[in-house]
Amino acid sequence: MVIIGIDPGYAIVGYGVVSYAKNRFVTCAYGAITTPAGMQFERRLEIIYNEVMRILNKYKPDAMSIEKLYFTNNKTTGIDVAQARGVVLLAARQNNVAVYEYTPMQVKQSVVGYGKAVKTQVQEMTKSILKLECIPKPDDTADALAMAICHGHCSGSLISRLI
Amino acid sequence: MVIIGIDPGYAIVGYGVVSYAKNRFVTCAYGAITTPAGMQFERRLEIIYNEVMRILNKYKPDAMSIEKLYFTNNKTTGIDVAQARGVVLLAARQNNVAVYEYTPMQVKQSVVGYGKAVKTQVQEMTKSILKLECIPKPDDTADALAMAICHGHCSGSLISRLI
Repeated sequence: MVIIGIDPGYAIVGYGVVSYAKNRFVTCAYGAITTPAGMQFERRLEIIYNEVMRILNKYKPDAMSIEKLYFTNNKTTGIDVAQARGVVLLAARQNNVAVYEYTPMQVKQSVVGYGKAVKTQVQEMTKSILKLECIPKPDDTADALAMAICHGHCSGSLISRLI
Repeated sequence: MVIIGIDPGYAIVGYGVVSYAKNRFVTCAYGAITTPAGMQFERRLEIIYNEVMRILNKYKPDAMSIEKLYFTNNKTTGIDVAQARGVVLLAARQNNVAVYEYTPMQVKQSVVGYGKAVKTQVQEMTKSILKLECIPKPDDTADALAMAICHGHCSGSLISRLI
């Protein structure tokens, strides 16, 4: 199963593509889509959409694992993150990629085994599970890979339960 | 100038297309894009995107006038409205339609002449300005037409200022 993890945003969208079979992960690709701060917002959405379409078309994942959004203090930023997340979901749908949402706590639980793990613990475990030489930068990329691992683990346990 | 007004949402997206020249409006089309409540969210986004693309392609507006989003109490609904608004902005960008945002108060000020006007006053004035036989239903459609009027009036005054 090929999984793409997405850390949604509008300035930076982290992505990580992994394949997962028999409890083992192989890293296919990872990176960050970035859009410049001064650019018209619709144009930023278009860049994100085009890049996500290109990545989905290239790696043809079976599933997208994406962070569930919550609004915190900065509501204005939250609106723009949600708008950008909308175009990512549209791209997934147009490529027949099933979408799964996980909370940060579910990701921590799944990657580190502890729902209140700190960011560095998640990053170290992500590096270890994926046999990477170093922690990918920016953080959004590492977070996206952790999202992908989370779905691998969760889908594995789903299959176990079905059997 | 052809203007499309949009009242963003994910269950109902109101739209209204008008042409505006020499302080007079002509109504071209209006209606609501609706998506069923039980449907997978990405699929709902796809329906909204496809319909907006179809409408933009048919009427080829010069400008999109869309409500500026604010988060109120229901943050979860707010996230989904923002995600749907993202795909509408993407469609505008892909069709080279310039996007203008207005607050509800700006719309009321522009349509009724009073920023604290009640909904029924806005609807009555929209009906009168556009010479409609009755107030369009659902409310989202009437709101979208009011958004379009707002941009017509505002762009008119912009031109006046330039001259």
